[in-house]
Amino acid sequence: MEQAREILEKLKNGEISVEEAEQYFRSEPFHEMGFAKLDTHRELRSGFPEVIYCAGKPDDYLVSIYKKMVEADGRAFGTRATKEQFELVRAEISDITYDPVSRILKVERVQSEGIGLVAVCCAGTADIPVAEEAAQTAEYFGTKVERVYDVGVSGIHRLLSKVELLQSANCVIAIAGMEGALASVIGGLVRNPVIAVPTSVGYGASFEGLSALLTMINSCANGIAVVNIDNGYGAGYLATQINRLAEK
Amino acid sequence: MEQAREILEKLKNGEISVEEAEQYFRSEPFHEMGFAKLDTHRELRSGFPEVIYCAGKPDDYLVSIYKKMVEADGRAFGTRATKEQFELVRAEISDITYDPVSRILKVERVQSEGIGLVAVCCAGTADIPVAEEAAQTAEYFGTKVERVYDVGVSGIHRLLSKVELLQSANCVIAIAGMEGALASVIGGLVRNPVIAVPTSVGYGASFEGLSALLTMINSCANGIAVVNIDNGYGAGYLATQINRLAEK
Amino acid sequence: MEQAREILEKLKNGEISVEEAEQYFRSEPFHEMGFAKLDTHRELRSGFPEVIYCAGKPDDYLVSIYKKMVEADGRAFGTRATKEQFELVRAEISDITYDPVSRILKVERVQSEGIGLVAVCCAGTADIPVAEEAAQTAEYFGTKVERVYDVGVSGIHRLLSKVELLQSANCVIAIAGMEGALASVIGGLVRNPVIAVPTSVGYGASFEGLSALLTMINSCANGIAVVNIDNGYGAGYLATQINRLAEK
Amino acid sequence: MEQAREILEKLKNGEISVEEAEQYFRSEPFHEMGFAKLDTHRELRSGFPEVIYCAGKPDDYLVSIYKKMVEADGRAFGTRATKEQFELVRAEISDITYDPVSRILKVERVQSEGIGLVAVCCAGTADIPVAEEAAQTAEYFGTKVERVYDVGVSGIHRLLSKVELLQSANCVIAIAGMEGALASVIGGLVRNPVIAVPTSVGYGASFEGLSALLTMINSCANGIAVVNIDNGYGAGYLATQINRLAEK
Amino acid sequence: MEQAREILEKLKNGEISVEEAEQYFRSEPFHEMGFAKLDTHRELRSGFPEVIYCAGKPDDYLVSIYKKMVEADGRAFGTRATKEQFELVRAEISDITYDPVSRILKVERVQSEGIGLVAVCCAGTADIPVAEEAAQTAEYFGTKVERVYDVGVSGIHRLLSKVELLQSANCVIAIAGMEGALASVIGGLVRNPVIAVPTSVGYGASFEGLSALLTMINSCANGIAVVNIDNGYGAGYLATQINRLAEK
Amino acid sequence: MEQAREILEKLKNGEISVEEAEQYFRSEPFHEMGFAKLDTHRELRSGFPEVIYCAGKPDDYLVSIYKKMVEADGRAFGTRATKEQFELVRAEISDITYDPVSRILKVERVQSEGIGLVAVCCAGTADIPVAEEAAQTAEYFGTKVERVYDVGVSGIHRLLSKVELLQSANCVIAIAGMEGALASVIGGLVRNPVIAVPTSVGYGASFEGLSALLTMINSCANGIAVVNIDNGYGAGYLATQINRLAEK
Amino acid sequence: MEQAREILEKLKNGEISVEEAEQYFRSEPFHEMGFAKLDTHRELRSGFPEVIYCAGKPDDYLVSIYKKMVEADGRAFGTRATKEQFELVRAEISDITYDPVSRILKVERVQSEGIGLVAVCCAGTADIPVAEEAAQTAEYFGTKVERVYDVGVSGIHRLLSKVELLQSANCVIAIAGMEGALASVIGGLVRNPVIAVPTSVGYGASFEGLSALLTMINSCANGIAVVNIDNGYGAGYLATQINRLAEK
Amino acid sequence: MEQAREILEKLKNGEISVEEAEQYFRSEPFHEMGFAKLDTHRELRSGFPEVIYCAGKPDDYLVSIYKKMVEADGRAFGTRATKEQFELVRAEISDITYDPVSRILKVERVQSEGIGLVAVCCAGTADIPVAEEAAQTAEYFGTKVERVYDVGVSGIHRLLSKVELLQSANCVIAIAGMEGALASVIGGLVRNPVIAVPTSVGYGASFEGLSALLTMINSCANGIAVVNIDNGYGAGYLATQINRLAEK
Repeated sequence: MEQAREILEKLKNGEISVEEAEQYFRSEPFHEMGFAKLDTHRELRSGFPEVIYCAGKPDDYLVSIYKKMVEADGRAFGTRATKEQFELVRAEISDITYDPVSRILKVERVQSEGIGLVAVCCAGTADIPVAEEAAQTAEYFGTKVERVYDVGVSGIHRLLSKVELLQSANCVIAIAGMEGALASVIGGLVRNPVIAVPTSVGYGASFEGLSALLTMINSCANGIAVVNIDNGYGAGYLATQINRLAEK
Repeated sequence: MEQAREILEKLKNGEISVEEAEQYFRSEPFHEMGFAKLDTHRELRSGFPEVIYCAGKPDDYLVSIYKKMVEADGRAFGTRATKEQFELVRAEISDITYDPVSRILKVERVQSEGIGLVAVCCAGTADIPVAEEAAQTAEYFGTKVERVYDVGVSGIHRLLSKVELLQSANCVIAIAGMEGALASVIGGLVRNPVIAVPTSVGYGASFEGLSALLTMINSCANGIAVVNIDNGYGAGYLATQINRLAEK
Repeated sequence: MEQAREILEKLKNGEISVEEAEQYFRSEPFHEMGFAKLDTHRELRSGFPEVIYCAGKPDDYLVSIYKKMVEADGRAFGTRATKEQFELVRAEISDITYDPVSRILKVERVQSEGIGLVAVCCAGTADIPVAEEAAQTAEYFGTKVERVYDVGVSGIHRLLSKVELLQSANCVIAIAGMEGALASVIGGLVRNPVIAVPTSVGYGASFEGLSALLTMINSCANGIAVVNIDNGYGAGYLATQINRLAEK
Repeated sequence: MEQAREILEKLKNGEISVEEAEQYFRSEPFHEMGFAKLDTHRELRSGFPEVIYCAGKPDDYLVSIYKKMVEADGRAFGTRATKEQFELVRAEISDITYDPVSRILKVERVQSEGIGLVAVCCAGTADIPVAEEAAQTAEYFGTKVERVYDVGVSGIHRLLSKVELLQSANCVIAIAGMEGALASVIGGLVRNPVIAVPTSVGYGASFEGLSALLTMINSCANGIAVVNIDNGYGAGYLATQINRLAEK
Repeated sequence: MEQAREILEKLKNGEISVEEAEQYFRSEPFHEMGFAKLDTHRELRSGFPEVIYCAGKPDDYLVSIYKKMVEADGRAFGTRATKEQFELVRAEISDITYDPVSRILKVERVQSEGIGLVAVCCAGTADIPVAEEAAQTAEYFGTKVERVYDVGVSGIHRLLSKVELLQSANCVIAIAGMEGALASVIGGLVRNPVIAVPTSVGYGASFEGLSALLTMINSCANGIAVVNIDNGYGAGYLATQINRLAEK
Repeated sequence: MEQAREILEKLKNGEISVEEAEQYFRSEPFHEMGFAKLDTHRELRSGFPEVIYCAGKPDDYLVSIYKKMVEADGRAFGTRATKEQFELVRAEISDITYDPVSRILKVERVQSEGIGLVAVCCAGTADIPVAEEAAQTAEYFGTKVERVYDVGVSGIHRLLSKVELLQSANCVIAIAGMEGALASVIGGLVRNPVIAVPTSVGYGASFEGLSALLTMINSCANGIAVVNIDNGYGAGYLATQINRLAEK
Repeated sequence: MEQAREILEKLKNGEISVEEAEQYFRSEPFHEMGFAKLDTHRELRSGFPEVIYCAGKPDDYLVSIYKKMVEADGRAFGTRATKEQFELVRAEISDITYDPVSRILKVERVQSEGIGLVAVCCAGTADIPVAEEAAQTAEYFGTKVERVYDVGVSGIHRLLSKVELLQSANCVIAIAGMEGALASVIGGLVRNPVIAVPTSVGYGASFEGLSALLTMINSCANGIAVVNIDNGYGAGYLATQINRLAEK
Repeated sequence: MEQAREILEKLKNGEISVEEAEQYFRSEPFHEMGFAKLDTHRELRSGFPEVIYCAGKPDDYLVSIYKKMVEADGRAFGTRATKEQFELVRAEISDITYDPVSRILKVERVQSEGIGLVAVCCAGTADIPVAEEAAQTAEYFGTKVERVYDVGVSGIHRLLSKVELLQSANCVIAIAGMEGALASVIGGLVRNPVIAVPTSVGYGASFEGLSALLTMINSCANGIAVVNIDNGYGAGYLATQINRLAEK
């Protein structure tokens, strides 16, 4: 009920069009697909379209979800896709694209220029897949992104050479595996929020990212919050929320 | 070096006064106290004054830090203080105040009205100390705060009755112990960032907050990031950063 | 000894037939197969026939157990079977069926209509294999089941749209991976028992289901108990016990 | 909204009185106390009155909650209370009683005879506090309880001497610390559900109950579900739900 | 030095032959193979020949160790061997035998009748590989073994039917995965030592045997000690030591 | 039933007296004390009298158990007792004795000379309380004990100077905290079983004995089995079983 | 035996005096005190006198060890002492001194100037007790020490202002709790070894120092090794070994 | 800035040549490759050239890094390489060599004789890959190495036969999996630093090296520090630093 009022207020304030408001009142809040319930009101409610977590989805579920979303929206965005899934969906949607580094599988027929600025930093080259998931997610959601890679704390001069860039961003995403110390050092250098992403990069006592996660959660620097191990998508989403607030 | 340039640019843009810029160039970047190095440039650099983590500080260190900061700044803010520490410092600084719920020990001679809006939610009454640490931290840093307490997910109607308030905030702080499910439900209801704070409230397999921490880190909802167990201060700081960006 | 008396009382009360009672006294309490001891009195004792955990069983053991059970009982039910095991057993028992989603491998020559009502809910599509194991187990044991899938707490309106159905069930099975918050929310909405099943769905700090297990064990809602990670079978069994008590 | 309909149907079916239905429509669904939101519709909704978790509640909160509940309902039931809390509340409510073994603090002006049967078993004498919390909770909620204490599996004849009693119960609560094997053995002996409660009794590698929790969650027996370490209350609640279904 | 004296005393007491004593004084205490140091005095010192842990040994190391040992001793015994390793070594030693269940790869040209009695029990059929490793190890070292398989505690009557056998053994090996409760129940039934072997059988929260290990270490029964997860060999060795002492 | 036959056979073989057999048939297998079931047949069955775990026992339970046992048997043996418990029980049983190092509280009116030999070794002086619990337990049960203390592996010459003594024992108990390496070194030096007891001695990453437990469970030496952290009693019991077998 | 030769060679090379060599051959390699074996040859063997770990030592053991060591050597050095232990020992040895910060209790009648240089760095003021334990240990063993405190990575300019000092040390000790990132940053700045000491400073997910330990063990920088949580003593010892090698 | 001065001082003291100093001032401190920042000043700064961690590097990144480094330096050294990576890089750099045991992939056109002495010890043959990584790393960096393999503590005479060699080394690397006790025993035998490397060798409760890591971190011996599980490279690097200091 509250949402109805919110929609109407948005309409009145010009935040949404009559068509968008109409879509809300004409449709069910989710589309029942039997095995899934597609959240058709999600963008109206949250400002973000629904996104597909491809890992482990049965082939037929995956294809029908992509088709349904492209049909409805003209675009679709999925994470953790394999090359096999790419080929499968491409048989149905010919203009779908796949990036083997970030493992993002998307249809994006219209591209907008990004707003604001988010800096995506990572400690080593092995962290780049997570960094690209974060960067491309933020870009898909309309954020301007700068990449600052291979700036791990064991050679601090590489990071210090980029301080000005980091200080100019509305939000910094700090991505690191192994000991994960990057977030704390960045947290001490900037005035805006830092989103820390531990990665599963490492071996031995890195315990698949647990060590980096604990480092980041215990950071002695202020202004840092943490998302799940390897969760580039989540960081890109949250950075976009913050960037939008700053550019509002 | 970069900082010097930044200071000068801020001066030119009117973001800081000549006096503030002068302070930067006249003083060392930190004040050496032997056992500690007070970060005298911190507010210029980060927009936030330094804060005192009182837990476990030897008595004489604590008192001299409070005195030094009040002298320099006319205010001081400490967390995790005990009643004994309060009495100790009050002997030197008579207008210091102490809140036994949040355990915040502060001198705040001028109070400003808060800007923007941050909602601080907690699941149960036992989470209130952490919630108050978050709320009062944000308020000290100039943020307007609304408190929404005892809205745990096992009685979801209590939370749903507050949805409009949550949706109007620039940032929501979601605080819960035990199973920590509150953050996920809120994350699905709002469009702005959610900062999740696991608390050590619970018993048995809650493992002093580890269970809630894992719940929050694994949240299936988007737009959620997590700070350390019981770290109300960190959440209040980060929420303030986001709130300032939104109100800029 | 007590069991003998119990059997006789059941016979007198008409709960079992003379043939069933005779079977008890004529046979050993288990059938020694060398590598295994088939529990031939199990159904008399517990009301449930023995079930086969197929995972990791050597091929020849598996086939001889299925043959022995179908011979004795005209039916057999196994969980965690692979497609290869299905083909192996089908060579001996032609009317055996296999469901690749639930991985249940069964011979069921007579199907009865279920009694009562158990609702099987799951948070995401990746949890469906566990949900189907639970649902089909309960159905095999004679329970009527309603499936409510893809109702994770990050879009709470999907779950709320099904409240009446959940409230009408004798028992609700709540299945979720990642942060596992579904059980707590359902626990607050219904008056009958909730059986929570954590799943190994997730990544990073979900630790193969440990995070969801901890969430569910620590639930702040009442009337919830937890079975092992991915243990759909156990939940279906327990729900059937409760459903039978309710429909007695 | 669904709840309104449910209330009306209950009224029509004679399950609740006009007064009770009136209470629903006249009152808010919860009573806002500032620091807490008392769930005034809980018994209508779940069939159970709200219960107070006393541990760590500030004194003034505790007293006002007890007073509010006794005023509204003529009774109140709290767990994990200390002797100091008892004395504090007794100053306001003279007929309150406290059991130092179970640590239950309650006002119960009318006592009803229990229905059905729940058996509460524990492995050793050190588990008795948890067992009494379970037993007294179930009794408060109207269940008939039989206690079977000190029947740990290392002297299996003690348990076997009680099999008939266990088999006659609608539900068995199995409570054990250390290695927690009791639940598995009972699970193999009865046909009704077993609720397993790990306790923090033990030392060394029992890790405050974690060992017993893992044992119970991994039980090879069927029909067992687990609640949190030391959560006698949760087991008593769930057993009552099952017992009510059986006696309906 | 002490060993020299011990050897001489053994010779004098007739415990070893002149040839054996001579071997001690003529040879180095170990045979340096570059990558390994074969312990040539081991049997004199410990009463047990050296045994080969095959898992992960490079092919050429493995073959040369088997050859060296068979040359020196006319026998060799290895655990955790694969079928590939069997074929590799068989190319050099034609009378070597391999058991795919226990994964033992051995040359045993003379077989002696076992002495005393050790009972090897396991909870389920999936534990048989570990049980066979234990049983065959004990047999190789000269112990008489009785196997008691599929006697898990969830059907306690199967175990109770074998109590007399267990009570007649000098030592009982109790092998179980999942919740591992078998050891505690056996410990309460016999008067001789119980060696508990947790197995990695199970899923979910069994954590590859950790759950069973914790159960067994925390056993409330007396006379139980634990070896590593899946360490059938270690249990067979220790049981042989105890059996020898009893039969001395 | 099997036990009855066993008792009769023991009587026939002269292992027990007519009085002892009579006690079995005249009494119940356990004495019901309400809060506890004293195992009155235990010594007949296992060869060991029941022992009292004093930690956490309510005062009145403790006193009545000691009184009951001394009455029945003329002796009683309890572990983990406090000085307060000693004084409490002494008020009722004047000849009870207490050792503050081992924390053993016992009545032992007749002392027998020990048989065989068990060596009790510990790594450091801080492990002595556990070592004394082990040694005094074994002595109470009739075992001759030699103590070898402060022989940690960081000064291996101290241990090597005692090798002959260790080699002459039927069983060695190896007790160590911190890194717990003592058991492995002893295991390589002796031919009889080694019972390893991890202790909670240490700090930091010793995690209250978990580190030592893992070390001992993973020992590369043969003939080692492990009991719970700080479980001197369990080691003394098991060593006595082995020693009795050897001296039979 | 090898040691004897080593002693003689040292004597010949003038590394030890005739008196020291004589002491070796006249005395036993350890002094048996019943509860302990004092390692009288330790300094000859390792170059370091034995040190007393005071925590948890019974009073009479502690006093007699201090007396024995001062008698033999004219000095004694103990760690983790309490004020009560200080007073106890002072009653016997009047010139003993105690530092409440480092908790070091020592008799040091002759002080030598330190050689070489070790830098002891710590992240926050709460780490100072561990830092002082490290610094004073190194000084006692003859090392020159520079202290660099409160240089945590969240304000990296404080650390960078000390780089030259760190680069001039033979070894740097890096001490930090919480997220423990200090060691990685220092490791990237210096060419000599870094010894990392995690501390138990922190709260929540710092898990008493485990988080910092994992950070340091996983460091992406080279030339870092880690000692136990809070083990300032161990770091001071190892740094002295390295410093001596450098100054040889 | 400090580094510039340091370079100039080194030039003046003849520690570096004019050409090396020139390289510092003419080049950037790192070479930006887009996906990576090659640290071109590293050897000047740390005395060690940059090393390549091959595991998981994308093929094209790997090849271009090797080419870039060989071009610049005439040598390159990588760890954790696969045979496939070897073949890939060999296509571009024909004189590259690969050792399948240590998995080191290197170009080393000029070989120098090593200085000083480091002893590399390992407990079992399965630890040899880690030992070779350590040994070959140290050798590449100019250290003389002695290998002492298969000296696990369960046959202590093998280790004791090598004591003199260990005592003559400037640093001992102690490598062990399973229970990891080797480091403690060596630590008690030598006067120079011991670097302990836990390996992932083992099974069951070895938890992929965690058990050995905890053993080593908790060592009761002095002069031991620990690197990450399987981190032979890190140990070889640190041992070289210590060896260089000793040979300076």
